[in-house]
Amino acid sequence: MDRLGEVLVVRGWIRTCRVQSTVTFIEINDGSCLSNMQCVMSSDAEGYDLVESGFITTGTSVLIEGTVVSSQGSKQKVELKVATLILIGKSDPSAYPIQKKRATREFLRTIAHLRPRTNTFGAVTRVRNALAYATHKFFQENGFVWISSPIITASDCEGAGEQFCVTTLISNAGESDCPLNSIPTTMEGNVDWSQDFFGKPAFLTVSGQLNAETYASALSDVYTFGPTFRAENSNTARHLAEFWMIEPELAFADLNDDMACATAYLQYVVKYILENCKEDMDFFNTWIEKGIINRLKDVVEKDFIQLTYSDAVKLLLKSKRKFEFPVKWGLDLQSEHERYITEIAFGGRPVIIRDYPKEIKAFYMRQNDDGKTVAAMDLLVPRVGELIGGSQREERLDYLESRLDELKLSKDSYWWYLDLRRFGSVPHAGFGLGFERLVQFATGIENIRDAIPFPRSPGSADF
Amino acid sequence: MDRLGEVLVVRGWIRTCRVQSTVTFIEINDGSCLSNMQCVMSSDAEGYDLVESGFITTGTSVLIEGTVVSSQGSKQKVELKVATLILIGKSDPSAYPIQKKRATREFLRTIAHLRPRTNTFGAVTRVRNALAYATHKFFQENGFVWISSPIITASDCEGAGEQFCVTTLISNAGESDCPLNSIPTTMEGNVDWSQDFFGKPAFLTVSGQLNAETYASALSDVYTFGPTFRAENSNTARHLAEFWMIEPELAFADLNDDMACATAYLQYVVKYILENCKEDMDFFNTWIEKGIINRLKDVVEKDFIQLTYSDAVKLLLKSKRKFEFPVKWGLDLQSEHERYITEIAFGGRPVIIRDYPKEIKAFYMRQNDDGKTVAAMDLLVPRVGELIGGSQREERLDYLESRLDELKLSKDSYWWYLDLRRFGSVPHAGFGLGFERLVQFATGIENIRDAIPFPRSPGSADF
Repeated sequence: MDRLGEVLVVRGWIRTCRVQSTVTFIEINDGSCLSNMQCVMSSDAEGYDLVESGFITTGTSVLIEGTVVSSQGSKQKVELKVATLILIGKSDPSAYPIQKKRATREFLRTIAHLRPRTNTFGAVTRVRNALAYATHKFFQENGFVWISSPIITASDCEGAGEQFCVTTLISNAGESDCPLNSIPTTMEGNVDWSQDFFGKPAFLTVSGQLNAETYASALSDVYTFGPTFRAENSNTARHLAEFWMIEPELAFADLNDDMACATAYLQYVVKYILENCKEDMDFFNTWIEKGIINRLKDVVEKDFIQLTYSDAVKLLLKSKRKFEFPVKWGLDLQSEHERYITEIAFGGRPVIIRDYPKEIKAFYMRQNDDGKTVAAMDLLVPRVGELIGGSQREERLDYLESRLDELKLSKDSYWWYLDLRRFGSVPHAGFGLGFERLVQFATGIENIRDAIPFPRSPGSADF
Repeated sequence: MDRLGEVLVVRGWIRTCRVQSTVTFIEINDGSCLSNMQCVMSSDAEGYDLVESGFITTGTSVLIEGTVVSSQGSKQKVELKVATLILIGKSDPSAYPIQKKRATREFLRTIAHLRPRTNTFGAVTRVRNALAYATHKFFQENGFVWISSPIITASDCEGAGEQFCVTTLISNAGESDCPLNSIPTTMEGNVDWSQDFFGKPAFLTVSGQLNAETYASALSDVYTFGPTFRAENSNTARHLAEFWMIEPELAFADLNDDMACATAYLQYVVKYILENCKEDMDFFNTWIEKGIINRLKDVVEKDFIQLTYSDAVKLLLKSKRKFEFPVKWGLDLQSEHERYITEIAFGGRPVIIRDYPKEIKAFYMRQNDDGKTVAAMDLLVPRVGELIGGSQREERLDYLESRLDELKLSKDSYWWYLDLRRFGSVPHAGFGLGFERLVQFATGIENIRDAIPFPRSPGSADF
C-alpha cells in the first residue's frame, strides 16, 4: 500500500463508533464498496467533542480528514488517523430504524428507502448494477442494437387477462375519491374507451418481443432491456408485478444460434461479476449462500447440458421419483421437475431443454417438422429453475396464420406482426430473461422482492 | 482493402435491384450500418432465374455468396461478385409500403413496424443505441450505480394530475366491453380502490428522482435510465406520453458539481457518437440538418456558458426583442426566450441558467441564502431548448418541511423522503434528461415521435 502517509478526505455514513479507553474507532462507509474505512481518533483531534456529545452514531453522515497509516487491527491493512471530524447530518439513535442487530428481510422491505444502507442490500445493488452493465457490454460487443420496446400498448396482441390497464378515465383529477358516475360511458352502459387518453383500452406490456422482432427484421440483431408487468395475483418469492426483462432477437438465426447466444450471454455476465465484484461475491458466499462462487464458476466453465423435452420426460419417468405433479408427454414441466433435472440429474449444471409440445407453448414459436413440437428452449439453472425461455419464431406466413386460426386469435390484430412475414421474412430467434431472476441466481438472495430496489406485488406499491 | 478475393456470405434485405444490359446490380443491407453492399451479378450466376422472374425486389430477404472484388463504380471501393443468390423471403412490390420514392414521416409513423428499414430510421436507431450505451459507459466509468426506479407507484408524492392510472378494476377480463357496473364501488358510490391490485390508487411514474435520492443517500452516486410518463394532452413535436429519462443523483455534491456533471456527461455522449457513428452522422449532416456535425463539435470543444436567471432576465430585457410572452423577474422562461439566449445571444453554445425564483420551481430544490431563489439549473441547447433540468436538493429537514407546508403538501405522504433528511442527511444534487430530446439534439430529427421506436401520444398507442 503506497498511499501510506497520504492525507485523505472521506465522506460517508457512520456504521459503528466505539470508544476504547483513549482511542475511538469509527467505521465509515460511502456505499462504493462493501468494506468500511476504519478511522482512528484520539481525543486531541478536531471534532472530538462530537464523539463526546454522542453525535457520532450509526447512520450519521460525516466528513473525516486524516492520514493513511498502517493498521494495528487484523481486519484491514490501513486505517485513517483522524485529524478532523465534521458532522454533516445527524441520526437520532433512538429513531434510526437500522440498528446493529440484524433486521429481518421482511422488516427491511417496509423501509425500502433505507435498506440500501445495509451490507446485504448495498452488495445486491452493486451486483445488480454490474449484471446490467455486463448485459449491455455483451450485446454491444456482439453488434446488437438496444431497442426500447413500448411500455404502454393498445395493441391487443397479448393475453390481456394478466395485464394492467393504463387509463386517465379514473382518478384523472389525482384525488383518491373517484365517483363512479364521473367515468364516461357509452349508451350501453359500458366504459367509453373513446374518451380515454389513447382512444381505446391500453395496457402495460408483458413482453417487448413482438416489437423487437420488427426491429430485428430491419437491423438484424437487437435487444431490449426494460420493465415488463404482470397483474398476476400471486404472492410468491418468485413473482413480481413489475420486473425488468432482457429480450434479444437475432435475425438469420435458428434455435441452435439462440441457444448458443443464451449460453454465451449467461457465461459472460456471470464471469463479469466474479471478476469485478469479488468482495460482494465473497460476502454472498459467506452470509447468503455458501458455495455460490463455486456454483457460478461451474456455469462459466462447464458446458451446458442440452436435451429435448421428450428426453427430459423419459429421464423424469426413469427417475422413479415421486413428484407432486404428473409427468407425461404433453404436460408442462413443473418447478420440481426442472429442479430435479438441473440439480440432481445433472449435478448442478445448467440445462437447456428444447423442442416442447406445441400445445403448451406460444403461438409464435416455429413448428418443427414432426408437426407436434416447436423450436422452443428453456434454460434451467439450480435453485432458480427457468432462467431463460426462448424460441425460433415462426417465419412462414402460412404456418403462422393457421396457428392463429387454430387458437382462434384474430389475424387483424396481428396485421403488423404478420407483415414481417409478408415482406422479406427471415428465420429469426430470441429469448427472454427476467433480470431479477438473474440477480437472485447471481447473489443467492432467496426472495425476488429483495432483488429490485422497490418491489411491486399485490397490495404493495409504496415508495 | 485486404479482403479482396475473399469469399463472403451476406444476408440482408434488398434495397434496389437494377438490370443494366448483361449485369445486374443488387444493393443489399442488413441494418448493421447505413451503407449497402453492392452485389454484381451476371447471368451465369446461380439463382439468376430469381432476377429474371422478378423476385428480387425492394424488401426481399436474400442470401448472397460471392467474392470481394474492386468496384468499378465511384460510390464504393469494393463490391461482391455474386456466385449464388438464394431467396429467403419474398416481398410483393405491389404491396410493400416502403418504395423508393421518399415516404413522409407522417406516413412512416403509421407503419412503425417497417420504418426501421429506411435509411433515416436505421440511422436514428443506431445513434439512439450509441447514445444509450455511451450514457451507461459515462456513468459506470465514473463510479455511478444504475438503479431501477419503480414504474408503478402508489406513493402520492407526485402531482397526479398528469399521471396515468394503473388499475385492474377496469378491463380486467381483457375484453373491450367493460360494463360500468362491473367496477366495485364504496357505499358512497366512489371507485373502491381497496379492491384494486395494489389496494389503493396507483400511477405510472413521472420521475424516478425521489427514489434515486434514497439510493444516493446510501451508495453515493447513482443514476436511473428508464421510462417515465405524462398523461398530458399535448400533441406537439416536443412531447411524448411515454419517454425515457436519465436521472443521475450525486451525494456530497452541490449545484456546481451538478452542472459540472451535466456538462461532462453531455460532452462525453456527443463525442462518443461523433467518433463511433461517423457514417450515420454524415447522413444526418447531409439529409436531415446541414451543419449538425459542427454544431455538435462546438458542444464538445467549447465551454458552456453559465449565467444566473436574474442575469438571463436582464439580458432578455436588454435585447429589445419583441417576445410573445412577457419577460419579468419571477416568470418562467419560455421556449422563445431560451432559444434567443442559446441561439442568438451566445451564438449556438449550450447555456446553463441557474438560481431560479423558488416560486416557479419544485418544492425539493435547495433554497439559496437570498431566500428568493433556489439552487436549480437548466441546460439549454440550440434547436431543442431545455435539454437538462437539475438542482441541488434541500437537505435541511426544517427548510424542506416549511416548504411543504407553504405549498400545502402533506408531510405524511413524504415520510420516507423526509427520513433521508432525518437520518444522515447529506448535500446532494442531480438532474434529469429526456432521452428522446437528446436523440433529437444529436440527430437533427425534428419530431420527437421519430426519436423513439413506437411513440405514444394522445389517441395513439399502436403496435
